[in-house]
Formats: sequence, C-alpha cells, structure tokens
Amino acid sequence: MSEKFARRMGTVHRSFIREILKVTADPEIISFAGGLPNPELFPVDAMAKASQEVFANIGASALQYSTTEGDAGLRAIIAQRYANRGLTVDPDSILVTTGSQQILDICAKVFLDKGDKVVIERPGYLGAIQAFSIFEPEFVTVSLEDDGPNLEELEVAFKDGAKCFYAVPNFQNPSGVSYGLEKRKAVAELTDKYDVLFVEDDPYGELRFLGEDMPSVYSFCKKPGILCGSFSKIAAPGFRIGWVVAEKAVYDKLVIAKQASDLHTSTLAQAIMRRYLETNDIETHVELIKERYGRQRACMVEMIEKYFPSDVSITRPEGGMFLWATMPEGVSSMDLFDAAIKDKVAFVPGRPFYVDGSGENTLRLNFSNADEVRIEEGIKRLGLSIDSFLK
Amino acid sequence: MSEKFARRMGTVHRSFIREILKVTADPEIISFAGGLPNPELFPVDAMAKASQEVFANIGASALQYSTTEGDAGLRAIIAQRYANRGLTVDPDSILVTTGSQQILDICAKVFLDKGDKVVIERPGYLGAIQAFSIFEPEFVTVSLEDDGPNLEELEVAFKDGAKCFYAVPNFQNPSGVSYGLEKRKAVAELTDKYDVLFVEDDPYGELRFLGEDMPSVYSFCKKPGILCGSFSKIAAPGFRIGWVVAEKAVYDKLVIAKQASDLHTSTLAQAIMRRYLETNDIETHVELIKERYGRQRACMVEMIEKYFPSDVSITRPEGGMFLWATMPEGVSSMDLFDAAIKDKVAFVPGRPFYVDGSGENTLRLNFSNADEVRIEEGIKRLGLSIDSFLK
Repeated sequence: MSEKFARRMGTVHRSFIREILKVTADPEIISFAGGLPNPELFPVDAMAKASQEVFANIGASALQYSTTEGDAGLRAIIAQRYANRGLTVDPDSILVTTGSQQILDICAKVFLDKGDKVVIERPGYLGAIQAFSIFEPEFVTVSLEDDGPNLEELEVAFKDGAKCFYAVPNFQNPSGVSYGLEKRKAVAELTDKYDVLFVEDDPYGELRFLGEDMPSVYSFCKKPGILCGSFSKIAAPGFRIGWVVAEKAVYDKLVIAKQASDLHTSTLAQAIMRRYLETNDIETHVELIKERYGRQRACMVEMIEKYFPSDVSITRPEGGMFLWATMPEGVSSMDLFDAAIKDKVAFVPGRPFYVDGSGENTLRLNFSNADEVRIEEGIKRLGLSIDSFLK
Repeated sequence: MSEKFARRMGTVHRSFIREILKVTADPEIISFAGGLPNPELFPVDAMAKASQEVFANIGASALQYSTTEGDAGLRAIIAQRYANRGLTVDPDSILVTTGSQQILDICAKVFLDKGDKVVIERPGYLGAIQAFSIFEPEFVTVSLEDDGPNLEELEVAFKDGAKCFYAVPNFQNPSGVSYGLEKRKAVAELTDKYDVLFVEDDPYGELRFLGEDMPSVYSFCKKPGILCGSFSKIAAPGFRIGWVVAEKAVYDKLVIAKQASDLHTSTLAQAIMRRYLETNDIETHVELIKERYGRQRACMVEMIEKYFPSDVSITRPEGGMFLWATMPEGVSSMDLFDAAIKDKVAFVPGRPFYVDGSGENTLRLNFSNADEVRIEEGIKRLGLSIDSFLK
C-alpha cells in the first residue's frame, strides 16, 4: 500500500506530543508535557444549561446543516469582543473554524504551493508545522528572542521572497515568549514593506496575568493580514471552535477551502457556545483562568529556581500556558525524557519544534494543567533528574 | 492579494449548491435543491436528554481535548452496527471524522499527488469533486448506468493507471442510482485486479425503502479499501460526525492527516452522539426515516409522471434522498433554473456534477426535505415550467 501514498506523507509525522501523551497516561507520572487547559476551570454547569436552552429554544435547527461561514450570532459576539479590546472587526470578515488548527490547514490550502517559503519562529508551533507540511512549503525560521523575532533574520527571510510569516506573538507555544510593542510595530512594517502575508495566531492572548495587554501585530499592519482566534483556552477545547478574520478576497477563498474540508463547523457546538456567551459573562470567567494560571506559573518558576541546576535557563512568560527551558549546549532533552519518565515526571523535548533539527538542549513545560502541589512535586523530581543527568 | 493564492485555488470553486441555497431562501419557493434531511425527524428530545446526561455524567471531560482517533465507545458502537449488518470491522480501524466530507479531504491528503488519476462516477458527488480538486488530481469519469458504473469504461480507466476509484454505490448523490449485486462484485474484482484503491462513500446505505439491502463493494474487495460512513442522514448532520474504516497502514496515515486538519472531532458532539446511541434504539429511528422518505419519494415519482412532459426521464431510487431527471438533449437546466425560480420552485442543475462540462440537460431533485403537500405543489410548478420551457 505504501507505494500509493502521496509524496507529502513522507515528510509529515504524527505529532510527537500526542505520542508522548500516551506514555504519560500512567497516573503516577506528573506530566508537564500536554498542552491542556485546566479542566477544573471549564464552566460545566453553565455549558449544561446553555445546551438545555439550545435544545428547548431552537431544537431541530441546532441539529441541521448550516452555513460554511458560521453562526451569525456567534460571529457578532466575536466581533463585539474584539471591539471591547479596541479592534474593529466586521462580523462578515469572521469565519468560524473547527478549532484554530483548521485555520492553518485552510490557509495552507489557499496560499501554499509546493516550495513556497513560509517563515516561522524558531522554536515554532508544532501544529502549524504539521498543517503546513502537508502542502510541502520550504520553512524558513527566525530566532525568537525575549521580545520577539530577530528582526535582521526576519528581513533577510522576507527579502528572500517569503510568501507568509506565521507567528504566535502572545505567549507563544512552545516558548512562552511574547512580542514587545516595538517589535510588533517593526514586524508589521516589515510585512507591509515586503508584501508578506502575516498570519497571526492568537489562542493565548487573553490569558495575560502579568504586565500590560498589547495590541495585535495585525492592528499595526497596513496591508491586511490574517488573525486567528479560539475558544479552546478561554472556554473549552472540546467544542473545537476557532475563528479567522480576513479581508474579503482572502475570506472568500478561505470559505471555499473550509467547505471542501468539512462543509461547516458543528452547528450544535456553535449554538451551545453562542448561548453560553449570551447568558454568561465570559470576561469574569477569563479572569478566573488568569488568576489560576498566574499562580501556577509563579509556583513553577519558584520551584525551578529552587530545584533546577543554575545552568538551566528559562523564559518567564507573562501569560499563556507554557514556559521553555534551555539546558547547557550538548545536553539532549530527548535522553533526559527517558530518565525523567523513570523518575515519574514528563515534559516535551524541544527538538520537534525546530524544523532544522536543532533545539536538542531545550524543553517545554506546561503549567496550566497541574495544581501547585503537583507542580512543586513534579519540578522537584525533574530537578533531581536533570541534576543526575548533567553529572 | 490574488497573486498570492496557491495555484489550486484557480480550479476549486465555491459549491454551486450552497450558492443556490441562498437564492432559494425565499419561503415562497418550494425547493428541491438542498440535500437536507427532514428536520421533523431529528430526535431532538432524545438528543436533549443525551446532552444533559453527558454534562451530568462526564462533565469536564466532554469539554476537554481528546484523541484524534475518536471516542472509543462511539467507535465500538459503529463497529457493532456493522456487525449487525454482517460486516466485521475492528473498532481500532475506525477513525471518527468531522463529517464524512472530512474523509474526502484526508484521503486526498494521504493519497493524491498532483496529476494522479482519480476515477469518479459521471455524474459525481460534488463534495468529493471539491475536496479532491484541492490536490489537483486528473479526474477520469465513468458513466453511471441504472445498476452502476459502465464496466468497460471502468476497466479502461483502471488500465490507464488510476490510483483510486471514489464511488457512492448506494442511492448516489446526485443520481439516486444504486449498484446491483453483480456490478458490486465486478467492481471489487476490477479494483483488486488493477490494484486500484477503492473509496466507498456510504452516507445513504441505511436509508433503503424499496428492494433488498446489498453488501458493500468493500466487503467483496480482497485488497483492503476504504469505507466511509456518517451519522448525518440517520441521526442529524449538525453534529458533523462521520467515520472511515481503513486497514492499519492507511489508518495510521489518515490519523496523521486528520491531526494536521483539526486535531480531533468535537469531544462534546461525540459524547452526545454516543450517549444518544447508548440510550436509544437508532434502528427504530432509521425505520421512521425510511418510512417517511419512502412516501415522499413515491409522491414525487407519482407527481412527475403526472406533471412532467413524457420526454423527461427520471431515475427511480430505492432509497436515499435524491432522484435525477434527464431532459431532451440540447435543453439547458441552467436556463430552466432561472425560469423555475420565477415559478417559485427550485432544483439543482446537473452540470456541476460533471467535471467534463457535460450534463447540461440534467437536474437533481431532493425528496427528503419537503412533505407530500409541498412535493405535489412543487412538482406541478416545475412540470409547468419545463412544459413552457420545452415549447
């Protein structure tokens, strides 16, 4: 059978993270490997009520086929939430997607021919690397510094004929890095200057627990870019509801690509999410998440300072769900992973986030999915693991 | 912006049917254009109850991320339902998808390189033409006769190096044609002989209201094919839940492609569908649908015999949701469409179902979405429209 597979399947791999999740199913293992929101914070009762009301109020129409563009009421709410944060977005420029992962797939369908140059951050988001790989682009990576991409590298990549730049400017997965204000403006200027399509992925932007909220890079771009959002981190991921904002010409193509992909996103899931948003104050709920993740992140940083060897450096994210650790050069986090699993603690080795095969000495730690007791114990275990590993 | 679009977007068009649905939003128009199940038959109360139970019983886990493969309990039920109909399917060979449209997208990702030959029926299912087109194959079409594809044409296409054959052997969309037993065996023999991957799409197979159920072509193939199913027509489409059955090597690739596409299908939608299936007798529900659609189809055929000119021929489907009409050569159903809309009745012109631009004189009529009163009135209007049009 293998001789029948499309060429692209030779270069696209099963998500390493999803494989790791199987290893870490052992309940004795404290896992910082996943990228899961804390389920204790899911608004289960409010969602149950919203669901009952959907069946009672609109019944059959919540179970029928619906438009590719998505529920009009839901799109209006998404636009209103942008307006609340100072960004004007026409509801008709919002396309509801089956999670924000689907945006990457349909953007790739609409824009990527084989061999097109796609610029991504180094390290970069694995889901995007997977989605884009299907369409066989050439990845060009730019270093991610404390305040965003290295601008010299970015300009070189743009000059060299890049078609698009995909980035996660807020609390990036995997690094936790956020772009500073100056770099946001500079990135927008560069994408305008070189006419590079900017795809801004922003699933974590609302989860800032330290520092000041910053405008999107999208808002600084003069040439229209693409802005992606998701309910997965602020409400619940099980709905698989994300959205993309795009100008008309691009929007129309994205709709065609989405139609070919799955016709439309679940009518029922959209109706329940809409009802939940209409009858609950999600902003209060987001505050709750931020408060909790802020505490968990503070605990993780504190424990790392206490238990990790001093030659392991970390990022100090101001929001989101992940932080990033860098061990001394030459140390393999893949090898450390095996040792750590024996010590009953898990993380994600950094290498899969680098398309160039580097990043061997890095690792990703998730702080959203474990409470402070488990974070303390888990980081202690991992510190000991690294200690013996570095000796 | 247009200079940035991928080459493929030049050949993929927005679904003509979905455009028609906008024209037919006028409530005075009796529409046979859509492909919607009858919403009066959706098990709204049972689904509402299932939904309540999901929130009460499993709460947060129904809102969390889940596996790409799909809910294990749901897959077990799908396998059991195949077993009830005499087909042994391992639950681990079932991948839950975001509607059966997604199967076409992920199959294309896994199998189609640009220029690969894909055999489809003529007329063919529009959703498949759209999904495959994204991957720029060469379509080869074979005539659909009363009992299935023309076997000579099929063998010529296979000899000529086809990679796969996509077909809807039960009550095809758009034609309503079903394969006879002998043709099912013959198709299986040919796909085996020429080592062509057989992709069997079967959203309507359970909706047979006349004649005897027939084994799938898949069940006759010695070399493993791909079998697609869906809850859209037997329960409700708003969930966006379909599934695909495939052998291990193919299954693993489909999982990778699905992961890149949308990570997984809505956890919540899967949980509600599973609970519904666990606590209700869907077979009784399917009987209800068959009884209703059978009556509606009988009414439509009777009215066509009464009101259509005698030189318009039709298929007489034994199940499903569509029938197909052929007008005399040289008559354009696109032009008829405009006239019919003025007479407040709608259908889908046949040409979009032909990748070779033929089929000008054909049209598709849906009988699942209108009751008998509207079918009688609508067919009467359409008959008058055709009458004046043919004069």
